[in-house]
Amino acid sequence: MSLTFIQGLELSGTFAFAISGATAAINKSYDVIGLLALAFVTAIGGGTIRDLLIGATPVAWMTDELSNTAIIVAAVIAALFFSYVKILQRWLNIFDAIGLGMFTITGINKGIAAGLPIPVCVALGVITGAFGGLLRDVITGEQPILFTREIYAVASIAGGSLYVLASVFTPLPGGFVQSISVAVIVGIRLLSLRYNWQLPRLRQ
Amino acid sequence: MSLTFIQGLELSGTFAFAISGATAAINKSYDVIGLLALAFVTAIGGGTIRDLLIGATPVAWMTDELSNTAIIVAAVIAALFFSYVKILQRWLNIFDAIGLGMFTITGINKGIAAGLPIPVCVALGVITGAFGGLLRDVITGEQPILFTREIYAVASIAGGSLYVLASVFTPLPGGFVQSISVAVIVGIRLLSLRYNWQLPRLRQ
Amino acid sequence: MSLTFIQGLELSGTFAFAISGATAAINKSYDVIGLLALAFVTAIGGGTIRDLLIGATPVAWMTDELSNTAIIVAAVIAALFFSYVKILQRWLNIFDAIGLGMFTITGINKGIAAGLPIPVCVALGVITGAFGGLLRDVITGEQPILFTREIYAVASIAGGSLYVLASVFTPLPGGFVQSISVAVIVGIRLLSLRYNWQLPRLRQ
Repeated sequence: MSLTFIQGLELSGTFAFAISGATAAINKSYDVIGLLALAFVTAIGGGTIRDLLIGATPVAWMTDELSNTAIIVAAVIAALFFSYVKILQRWLNIFDAIGLGMFTITGINKGIAAGLPIPVCVALGVITGAFGGLLRDVITGEQPILFTREIYAVASIAGGSLYVLASVFTPLPGGFVQSISVAVIVGIRLLSLRYNWQLPRLRQ
Repeated sequence: MSLTFIQGLELSGTFAFAISGATAAINKSYDVIGLLALAFVTAIGGGTIRDLLIGATPVAWMTDELSNTAIIVAAVIAALFFSYVKILQRWLNIFDAIGLGMFTITGINKGIAAGLPIPVCVALGVITGAFGGLLRDVITGEQPILFTREIYAVASIAGGSLYVLASVFTPLPGGFVQSISVAVIVGIRLLSLRYNWQLPRLRQ
Repeated sequence: MSLTFIQGLELSGTFAFAISGATAAINKSYDVIGLLALAFVTAIGGGTIRDLLIGATPVAWMTDELSNTAIIVAAVIAALFFSYVKILQRWLNIFDAIGLGMFTITGINKGIAAGLPIPVCVALGVITGAFGGLLRDVITGEQPILFTREIYAVASIAGGSLYVLASVFTPLPGGFVQSISVAVIVGIRLLSLRYNWQLPRLRQ
């Protein structure tokens, strides 16, 4: 089996998302079932919500053996090497940003293929990239990080809007547009972490 | 663009639901992403769950530009004029009741069109009218208002049952039956607010 | 109307699941709407998520009058005889275990019919048997029992794996394989309750 570069990028994102779910499970003292379930929900939740909304069933993860394997491996690694996972958080952030970028593009492509309006396609990109983490937070009873702190959805919206506009309105080759858009998402996300950019929170 | 009266009623309901979601986001100090997301989830969550359950995909909001615009406008207004929103709560309750009434009927009509049993159609009405608010409460970590205090689902069930029974078993014209049924829902809901009717809560 | 033995087993499981949802509603001092809704969500939530994931809509409960009646009866009984429900918990555990077993098999059969990979079929079994309770816990704001304490999903996975492997790889008659598999699930579940087996919880 040989992976393409794009598959490798997607897998590294899936892996990082699953680690994030597994870490949340460990922080809540879940058992091994909770560990696996939360790793899966975090990694494939966004794509699953997207597929349900557009009616693409059976949903994608059910036939994506490679991703499912990556999620199980991530859960096992998180359980066995939890203290190292914390140390390697900086690297995981990079993989997570790549996942956000790749998943955003996947979601948008499915929206375009379904003939949906451009803003809805961008929304599907954000849902694909970020709603797995939302489900993770709702299940564990935490306030959603997606809604309260970090430049996460904003990075997805920025790169996603660039992607969909360039795809629909310019003759630029798809691979080029996708590369630039993912780079924009990863760049905004990592810069926001590096310089601690945060969205203002609303006050009463 | 000219709106029909019915579209206007539905839009005022969507607007009120979105304000309710945006208000919850502000109360939780969410950021602008959380504001928009919660306004959307509250306004279109019920209809989305209904569409998923009956397999009507892509779900309705994706192609409903008018509603989506109303939701964004509501979120912006809630963020900019939060203190006024509180003062205008009484008016918002009226719009919210209208939304509950209109959405209940929409849900029931979709159930009838799908050939589902009458009680299930009524359930789809309640889901359409009230489960957006349920999602809002689950995401923000609040106990669901729908299940704990107010005469909300009961109003939807009363008017919805009237509607489905009159639609299926009487030759009365559809527009007439719908008007009466929405009026019953709005009436029960607003009277319950005015006189502080509450369902008894169950005790151990 | 005469019930088959299998229908009787499924109904007793649905009944026990609904009681569990109704009990949670009463513990949270929900009103009668919350009682009914939580009984339904707990009893049919797992099968509904399964049907959504594989695209089997309208979802099963909408045309399953018998189950819906059992759920309403269970909710009424729980509300009227709450103190007795507590005393009868041991019997309810047996019905609940039977429900877990029967629902696991139903979920797996739907996965096999949809041509999904074997591990995904087992996952659909667990989802069908156990995710109604997960929804119950998320809505009421409790940490999911499914992920934190009991031998529940593990029983479903053990019996479910046995079922799917025997169904696919042996010529044994379906009814026989199903009976053994349900017995394994019920047995593991009840033994774990009797002897207080628990999965180890993960620690940081």
